Amino acid sequence: MELVKRLLSGDMRAAARLITHIENELPDAREAIRLIYPHTGKAHVIGVTGSPGSGKSTLVDSMITEFRKKDKTVGVICVDPSSPFTGGAILGDRIRMGNHFTDKDVFIRSLATRGALGGLSKATKDAIRILDALGKDVIIVETVGTGQDEVDIVKAAHTVLVLSVPGFGDEIQIMKAGILEIADILVVNKADRDGADKLALELTLMVDLGHEEKADQKWKPLVLKTVATKNIGTPELIETIERHLQYLKSSNLLEINHKKNIEREIIELVNEHLINHLLGIMKEGDFEKLIEKIVEREIDPYSATDEILKKLYSN
Amino acid sequence: MELVKRLLSGDMRAAARLITHIENELPDAREAIRLIYPHTGKAHVIGVTGSPGSGKSTLVDSMITEFRKKDKTVGVICVDPSSPFTGGAILGDRIRMGNHFTDKDVFIRSLATRGALGGLSKATKDAIRILDALGKDVIIVETVGTGQDEVDIVKAAHTVLVLSVPGFGDEIQIMKAGILEIADILVVNKADRDGADKLALELTLMVDLGHEEKADQKWKPLVLKTVATKNIGTPELIETIERHLQYLKSSNLLEINHKKNIEREIIELVNEHLINHLLGIMKEGDFEKLIEKIVEREIDPYSATDEILKKLYSN
Repeated sequence: MELVKRLLSGDMRAAARLITHIENELPDAREAIRLIYPHTGKAHVIGVTGSPGSGKSTLVDSMITEFRKKDKTVGVICVDPSSPFTGGAILGDRIRMGNHFTDKDVFIRSLATRGALGGLSKATKDAIRILDALGKDVIIVETVGTGQDEVDIVKAAHTVLVLSVPGFGDEIQIMKAGILEIADILVVNKADRDGADKLALELTLMVDLGHEEKADQKWKPLVLKTVATKNIGTPELIETIERHLQYLKSSNLLEINHKKNIEREIIELVNEHLINHLLGIMKEGDFEKLIEKIVEREIDPYSATDEILKKLYSN
Repeated sequence: MELVKRLLSGDMRAAARLITHIENELPDAREAIRLIYPHTGKAHVIGVTGSPGSGKSTLVDSMITEFRKKDKTVGVICVDPSSPFTGGAILGDRIRMGNHFTDKDVFIRSLATRGALGGLSKATKDAIRILDALGKDVIIVETVGTGQDEVDIVKAAHTVLVLSVPGFGDEIQIMKAGILEIADILVVNKADRDGADKLALELTLMVDLGHEEKADQKWKPLVLKTVATKNIGTPELIETIERHLQYLKSSNLLEINHKKNIEREIIELVNEHLINHLLGIMKEGDFEKLIEKIVEREIDPYSATDEILKKLYSN
């Protein structure tokens, strides 16, 4: 595939095109992933999540600046499950993180899909692979919100940052969403505001409490304060992120987690296929007739299920 | 099956035993449903949901009293997805709705399962069938909370009641959970409290707004006020519930909705089977080896999925 060749030689426009194919769920997107897969697995993937208004974009912007100072190339994927598919989010991205617009070693791209939300999580994984194959050292995945869907998306990252800001009552929200469990680093952004120290203290106490419960876990999530608009705290944050990667490598967790993620992905892919296959079968008239028979109580739901399964396996 | 025979002859203890088998997901529970299925479909199933503290149990108690005055036999299933499986909730139920403890025509039972939440929704459907085959005229399914899980559970009911109480800020919560969409009757309970009229008005306005959007829908959800502790408003509520059933029958919606529910149930049953089958296959060493190959990047996730599917269909 021509696009794949161009991607592997570092062509950003090929990357953008392939991500569009992924968004549109075109058949050649899957083929492209097959081809690039042996060339992936090099990048450090960082997930960034937190409530709207916590300053995620500004922090990501500030992180890019720091990574560039260290000569690392950066890819950013912005995932917003709540926004409808637009197909033209690229311009918005360029305006949004305008500081790096002219930097050839920074690639920023929004992600949406026409499909269900599970599709977005799958598309994120494949978009990470594209940027990985493109040769980016660091890939930042930014998601909006802190719901279960976002949790699923950032699970694909090696290092997960959870942002909160003073004065939002976030501490409770964070606990509720169970997001503390997935955080490797807790960032108190807008730390020049009143209440930042209090929030940082509360988060630290929460981490201590949670950490006691799982003594097997060696990395204790750190609480860091930043003022992203002024690049305050970002150098320390980047250092901590890199330290976390070293920890993952030395403890073998990088490999263990990767394996778990692959397992989860395979189960999802197989499940997706089976459901689609089933929906295909169900469109035939036979399914309608079977439902009719259950409604008339000529057959019970369990026996009807057995009949469908028989058909599924014989196809 | 001896238990099924006893159930069909009206034995409440057989019903209790069969529901326990359903909770424990015993193989003979499924067999029992097969046998009783032709004898089901007679009861009027009423779903009752609403925030904790809205007085659901008291209202259900008051509803039982009214139905009994009309000589209707009543079954009650209390579903609490948040409570762990206890296996011995029966005593609690008897205390809880003690007014009807000695009434042989009232059957009250809590429901829990060891399995996942989808299991609870499935168990509820089968427990309804048990009480239906037992010969109860009316089956009330009471759920705790107003989350998506509860919405799924009450969807199995013919007539859905959503409770709210003044002074809880429920109106917003109700809107959030999208529960208004499934309500056939909106009950403002504890209507002797301040703010009951205001809440009833707000709910009416919300119903009017929602109703404009779906003009094809002929039943406009009604807002009723009750003081369940004093049986105030319950007779009118029961009248409205019965009127709703008449509406469902005359508009053919009883059959149409039943068909939709059956379709959904079959899809869930088939899906559940496929996932279990897949998990079975995955336990074999071959799956481990395949994951290992993906981790080593010898094969990509999509090709690995194809291999698993090939195996699944050849089994």
